[in-house]
Amino acid sequence: MDVLDWLTAALGEDVVAAGVLSTDPALLDASRGDRSGWRADGEPRAIVFAASVEHVQATLRAASEFRVPVVPRGAGTGLAGGAGGTSGSIVLDVSRMDRILEIVPEDQLAVVQPGVINSDLNAALEPHGLFFAPDPASKAVSTVGGNIATNAGGLLCAKYGVTREAVLGLDVVLADGRLIRTGHRTVKGVTGYDLTALFVGSEGTLGVIVGATVRALPIPPGEPRTLGALFPDVRAAAAAAARITAARLRPAVMELLDGPALERIAAYLGEETIRDAFGATAGTSHLLVQFDGDGATADAEAAAALIRATGGTVRVAADAAEGERLLAIRRAFHPALAATGEVLIEDVAVPRSRMPEMFDAIERISERYGIPIPTVAHAGDGNLHPNFVFTGPAVPDEVWEAAGDLFRTAVDLGGTLTGEHGIGVLKRRWLADELGPDSYELQVKLKSVFDPLGILNPGKVFG
Amino acid sequence: MDVLDWLTAALGEDVVAAGVLSTDPALLDASRGDRSGWRADGEPRAIVFAASVEHVQATLRAASEFRVPVVPRGAGTGLAGGAGGTSGSIVLDVSRMDRILEIVPEDQLAVVQPGVINSDLNAALEPHGLFFAPDPASKAVSTVGGNIATNAGGLLCAKYGVTREAVLGLDVVLADGRLIRTGHRTVKGVTGYDLTALFVGSEGTLGVIVGATVRALPIPPGEPRTLGALFPDVRAAAAAAARITAARLRPAVMELLDGPALERIAAYLGEETIRDAFGATAGTSHLLVQFDGDGATADAEAAAALIRATGGTVRVAADAAEGERLLAIRRAFHPALAATGEVLIEDVAVPRSRMPEMFDAIERISERYGIPIPTVAHAGDGNLHPNFVFTGPAVPDEVWEAAGDLFRTAVDLGGTLTGEHGIGVLKRRWLADELGPDSYELQVKLKSVFDPLGILNPGKVFG
Repeated sequence: MDVLDWLTAALGEDVVAAGVLSTDPALLDASRGDRSGWRADGEPRAIVFAASVEHVQATLRAASEFRVPVVPRGAGTGLAGGAGGTSGSIVLDVSRMDRILEIVPEDQLAVVQPGVINSDLNAALEPHGLFFAPDPASKAVSTVGGNIATNAGGLLCAKYGVTREAVLGLDVVLADGRLIRTGHRTVKGVTGYDLTALFVGSEGTLGVIVGATVRALPIPPGEPRTLGALFPDVRAAAAAAARITAARLRPAVMELLDGPALERIAAYLGEETIRDAFGATAGTSHLLVQFDGDGATADAEAAAALIRATGGTVRVAADAAEGERLLAIRRAFHPALAATGEVLIEDVAVPRSRMPEMFDAIERISERYGIPIPTVAHAGDGNLHPNFVFTGPAVPDEVWEAAGDLFRTAVDLGGTLTGEHGIGVLKRRWLADELGPDSYELQVKLKSVFDPLGILNPGKVFG
Repeated sequence: MDVLDWLTAALGEDVVAAGVLSTDPALLDASRGDRSGWRADGEPRAIVFAASVEHVQATLRAASEFRVPVVPRGAGTGLAGGAGGTSGSIVLDVSRMDRILEIVPEDQLAVVQPGVINSDLNAALEPHGLFFAPDPASKAVSTVGGNIATNAGGLLCAKYGVTREAVLGLDVVLADGRLIRTGHRTVKGVTGYDLTALFVGSEGTLGVIVGATVRALPIPPGEPRTLGALFPDVRAAAAAAARITAARLRPAVMELLDGPALERIAAYLGEETIRDAFGATAGTSHLLVQFDGDGATADAEAAAALIRATGGTVRVAADAAEGERLLAIRRAFHPALAATGEVLIEDVAVPRSRMPEMFDAIERISERYGIPIPTVAHAGDGNLHPNFVFTGPAVPDEVWEAAGDLFRTAVDLGGTLTGEHGIGVLKRRWLADELGPDSYELQVKLKSVFDPLGILNPGKVFG
């Protein structure tokens, strides 16, 4: 009896016949990668499309019995290779567990299965005047479970927090198939260690998230106010962002596009679109700022004044439609880059005050390695996405060398090599450098507490 | 050579002579308890008043070498017995490590030693327009390190988060004396497991916090607006609090005092003080609500209208002085109780919507056991502090029985037996009930990763 026979018996023939367990080569092949472009060598042995907690438990029991690796997977929108089905593994896809089980408006929480799409949850919360704050760029297609497993960030984090802060409790199937529940349905709770936070961002290496109790926040009142600004260079744009933060204004969104980024967007959308949005084309860097809540209008005016004082050209959108035109510039970043070649999307974070130095370093690295690196930054929280442009399909060695240079610089500036995408396989080789040997060793030991047989997403994050 | 000889050699004679290591019986005796009233049986063997990271490292190396328990301690203001120096232990007091090392306004963070008093940090941040959000009632005397070690809550949590959300990174000395650094100086960062969150609230059982990088938030603009309301009974007060939350208003503070609590405060302050504050004495329960930020005045008026609609009598403070008189009622709760006998301060949390049921249960338990249980609740986040009044000095068995009844009810309502005070020694016996056997076992294994010799605050939280 091999692992798939065992698993078939555990799931039941009818469940297997309904498509829960598959060895279809096309499905296996599709599960090898994610949105990073990385694909595992070799092929998984099977894929389970779990429709229930019991299916997840059966899969992990089978995997434990036969010492077979399990690769948990949601929508496959990760950017670090974490959910890629590796050779000989069972891919455990929970994207069909996509029900919203409860919305409790009076407790400002929702209970969801892991496969719920982020924006579907938000659509369901909206009539209650609530929203789920984590907003990765992939929110229209990524799952809440995947957002949690990677501690996904997004545009709103500086004001509304990262995913960890939006998770009250989790249902997790352990490596041996046991189900545990962590956390509470309450705002506060200090009973024992914070296992919830430990699972958030653990990239499938500690357990499989099969349910989540998440916090919903009240939608800020009134209309948001958006402004767009152009600057002669990226340092001026970064300085303006720093002044907005220093003035204790709290933008919901503050995105910075550097010269190479804006240039590609202008080529993609057309110069007129840029001129229509800003009323000007002067300048090479772009700052997009959005305020929400009661003080939105006053805050936007105050930010505009600061921007003018730093030499920027600014337009405060008169209404939502004009705001939308400004937002469209930022949103065109990824399509514009995709139109010009392959990209490695990087993800360093630095203390906000060090952003100008980080931009300097990006320019230096771009020149040194001869690689274009258009960059967008979540300027409110110091998270930069330098995009290394290359001709594919595989990422050339010199791009990884340049990326390594970037990571070391970020860490030297008091930052980190990944702000919101995770380690996966793509950043494993730099993990120990950032953590140091003692923390690295502790993390490996922690994993072994949860996964003594080493079957949970092996080869990811560590090793 | 015994552990103290070894430690003396490691610290150096001059350091010991300067008072870093003491066996003064009065100091040892004072370290046996905390603000809960609990005191350890027997006596610690020594107390170290660490003035540096090196002193902490030397202490843990000595303790590891001789397998001697170490009890980390800050200001000793805990309410669960967690910092009490147990028999034969070395108490490791870090309250003299009380320097603010850095305030970086542009990054909205501070780097502190663990012994900094919460309100001293806030005083230092205030000129920069920033504040440290965790605000336990003990903030004038409790340390930031202790706030972190217990994941302390406070009045502002519903709007500004618990301590965990205010901690970006930690410096921790491990059981064997190694120093590690967790987290980042950045808003985002997903490099490996969230060790920072694991140490927050770990009550000295995983390592000794010797430094913290904490997030500071912008002080909300404008003057806060405060309102006080009286209700015929606690259910009406709880219903009004629920309606304020449901209306998507976001009070910074929302405190509820039940009838027995208000009665004792009235006796303590005098009926006139109550009348002066509210313009009325009708009613037996009290709700105190404070709004801050741009919309404070409008929010306070909206909340007042909701309160009137639920049958409450409400006064919106015209100015800060009047607001202060309302706040003084709430602040008198603990002194008023202390004036009437000994109290066991409990700390359950329930989903906000279940507060009326929890108040019903408190009334039922009070009647059943014949114990007065005046209660104050952080109504914005469902955290209740039922205060069991008894004649001391020791907590009678029937009070613990009544408390056990309370804990079970809170957990049955989807809540927890401790919202913000921690497990310490006083709630050990209920911990496994709430966590369940599988989570409990995982937590014990996690501890053993960090503390294989079992020297870190043994007998606390677990066992």
